[in-house]
Amino acid sequence: MGIRIIATTQDHFSQAFEEICNRGKIDIKNVIPRVMEILEDVQSNGKLALLGQVEKFDDWRPRDFEDLRICEESCKNAYEKLDPLSREALCQAYERIYTFHAKQKSKTWLDFEQNGNILGQKVMPMERAGLYIPGGKAFYPSSLLMNAIPAIVAGVREIVVCSPTPHNAPSPMFLAALHLCKIKEAYKVGGAAAIGMLAYGVEQCKKVDIITGPGNIFVATAKKMVFGDVMIDMVAGPSEIVIIADKSADARSVASDLLAQSEHDEMASAILLTDDWGLAMRVSEEIEALLPSLARKEIAGKSITTRGMIIVVRDIAQAIELSNILAPEHLELLIQNPMNELANIKHSGAIFLGSYAPEAMGDYIAGPNHTLPTGGSARFFSPLSTDHFMKKSSIIYLSKQGFDTLAPYCQRLAEIEGLGAHQKSVAIRRI
Amino acid sequence: MGIRIIATTQDHFSQAFEEICNRGKIDIKNVIPRVMEILEDVQSNGKLALLGQVEKFDDWRPRDFEDLRICEESCKNAYEKLDPLSREALCQAYERIYTFHAKQKSKTWLDFEQNGNILGQKVMPMERAGLYIPGGKAFYPSSLLMNAIPAIVAGVREIVVCSPTPHNAPSPMFLAALHLCKIKEAYKVGGAAAIGMLAYGVEQCKKVDIITGPGNIFVATAKKMVFGDVMIDMVAGPSEIVIIADKSADARSVASDLLAQSEHDEMASAILLTDDWGLAMRVSEEIEALLPSLARKEIAGKSITTRGMIIVVRDIAQAIELSNILAPEHLELLIQNPMNELANIKHSGAIFLGSYAPEAMGDYIAGPNHTLPTGGSARFFSPLSTDHFMKKSSIIYLSKQGFDTLAPYCQRLAEIEGLGAHQKSVAIRRI
Repeated sequence: MGIRIIATTQDHFSQAFEEICNRGKIDIKNVIPRVMEILEDVQSNGKLALLGQVEKFDDWRPRDFEDLRICEESCKNAYEKLDPLSREALCQAYERIYTFHAKQKSKTWLDFEQNGNILGQKVMPMERAGLYIPGGKAFYPSSLLMNAIPAIVAGVREIVVCSPTPHNAPSPMFLAALHLCKIKEAYKVGGAAAIGMLAYGVEQCKKVDIITGPGNIFVATAKKMVFGDVMIDMVAGPSEIVIIADKSADARSVASDLLAQSEHDEMASAILLTDDWGLAMRVSEEIEALLPSLARKEIAGKSITTRGMIIVVRDIAQAIELSNILAPEHLELLIQNPMNELANIKHSGAIFLGSYAPEAMGDYIAGPNHTLPTGGSARFFSPLSTDHFMKKSSIIYLSKQGFDTLAPYCQRLAEIEGLGAHQKSVAIRRI
Repeated sequence: MGIRIIATTQDHFSQAFEEICNRGKIDIKNVIPRVMEILEDVQSNGKLALLGQVEKFDDWRPRDFEDLRICEESCKNAYEKLDPLSREALCQAYERIYTFHAKQKSKTWLDFEQNGNILGQKVMPMERAGLYIPGGKAFYPSSLLMNAIPAIVAGVREIVVCSPTPHNAPSPMFLAALHLCKIKEAYKVGGAAAIGMLAYGVEQCKKVDIITGPGNIFVATAKKMVFGDVMIDMVAGPSEIVIIADKSADARSVASDLLAQSEHDEMASAILLTDDWGLAMRVSEEIEALLPSLARKEIAGKSITTRGMIIVVRDIAQAIELSNILAPEHLELLIQNPMNELANIKHSGAIFLGSYAPEAMGDYIAGPNHTLPTGGSARFFSPLSTDHFMKKSSIIYLSKQGFDTLAPYCQRLAEIEGLGAHQKSVAIRRI
């Protein structure tokens, strides 16, 4: 039992491909009632609901709301105790992520028309952002950086973080990352209850304008249910990668990149598309060879066997075509002249080009965001960005001359739609 | 009984203000079960569900799915039969909306780092967009223009329109607007069923990537429930305006602008903030004088009485402060030197500056979009824009030198997070 290999020419290919097309389906419908109960509980009972959820899921008993708050001093201490390499790694990551996200930042613009009209778009940061950072089985300081930095670059004044904290024992690395990001408000609360607190406000934690960050199906569903009351970044499911490789690719690199995806989660999905049977076989062997040495071999093994796949394609053009149908979260192009194919990629959260850009570099340090759309939603969702933390207002100023030119058309359109007061509000000004 | 007038110094002001802060609350929770039933019906029963819904709500009986489709020829005919002023008005609106939205369009960028790394962001149009255009009581060709043009500017190849069509009698103006926008695929289906069809696909109408457009509470709730399976623009409630006016403002203009808002819907909300008691009284009188002459006086009268308000403030600074709390859909600044206050406006869907920019001009012809966030959601939602119909991919290429510099930090961060295969995928490439 290892990774499945199938060729596009085989009879049962369509069925196998449809299976991976459905890779990202998470059955939100079944958890909606439970999630709505929790959200209503938080809205009705405030801190009591939160304290109850923490006791139930995180195995400790906070006495009051204050106990949920992470103390700034502890973050500073954790940061100061970091070993030099870890600190340098965090700082390098911070700087590179900051630099990339600063380049994304949209700006206010005004357009002056010849007759004196001024039209434009004012771009402003949101005031308060809530970042959900998963905890529990492991702590991910990189997730904090990837969510906090775009908000910082956007100019969000209040950034609040929620993360589940089993046994009331936050990871020192997570605390250090909070300090590095200068975050002053963080709570040890997770799950749908945390999303409810951020969306509706509880005690001194006021409601936010946007909630971002990854989470399990309860968190994803809660985000979907509060959307509209607040903004959210996206609804995300399990992580995934598509690698397109030709005979120039190094089989061990390909195998380790597939396993890097698989180790995230049993539900993660790692797909290789190659036009070379020899590479397909070598990658399969390398996976077998590498797997036993991994700390997370159980998870990676289950994921690669049940949700991994090697597809042998006719040529690289067919690989690109299949990838565009899959619209993957991550896409690696381990082919000769990868830049040549960039124009043909229609849908992918992030595109990794060439041998020296394994997904892991993008997860941590390259600069672009690692919060990416999953399950085919790269067709319409974008990577988390500075823009997510900003919003726009239209600006409309009309000169007397500009008004006079447009007024007759405006009145006619209002008349057509039967809106007499609209018509009148223009007519009155023409006198 | 007319529009209420209250001063910020009065005892019961806080209560009155809280009331208008809650103006946009639509009770989605109660309609979720009914909407989910309809969405499931469409997913399970396809065209039969649609045909049933049309028969139930639009009072005609389509025999088959084909009957729901609007024929292109009828659109062309309707366009050709337009009177010259209507045609010119539509064309002028089209051109001005197009020009404004072209200025919004984001572009792909690449950043070349000194050591050979290339990072960037690829911006691409979505492939297929679904526009929901309300029908029923009235037809709004302007809504079609405001939703279709940003999609056209973005470069969306397939644009599909749904609109409820009572008695199978589409408005000629709506058909003409479809022709003007060169839309080839339009269906006479409305409500939650139409949203289901767009989100999941039925017969030859394939699933879309994004659904935009206004609608009643069932449409808004359906959009919220399919969010994640597709993108949506926003969750919108009743329309609203805040006007800030000083003694320089013309009372009749102010009154007609308030009524123009009120005639949309009994639930619409029109608020005047002024530092001048005299203006407050004159506006109230002008409303009484104008109201009886309006075709939609029943609706406008109910809205202005129950959900309209004149608030007399201490000064314009206080008016701006209250407006920022309300975060209105539309904000008119009918004050001396309105440009001076632009920097102080934090939240508003659209900002109308000066005497010659009544909201009606923005609704139809100024250029910026009239699909705007309501109910305070201007804190986090933006006007409908070209960007809504585009999505981004991150681009990551690392040179050998770039990789070597970053690899140790990347490995350290992977180690910290306990992700051994991530670490390995970097280590393997260092050999």
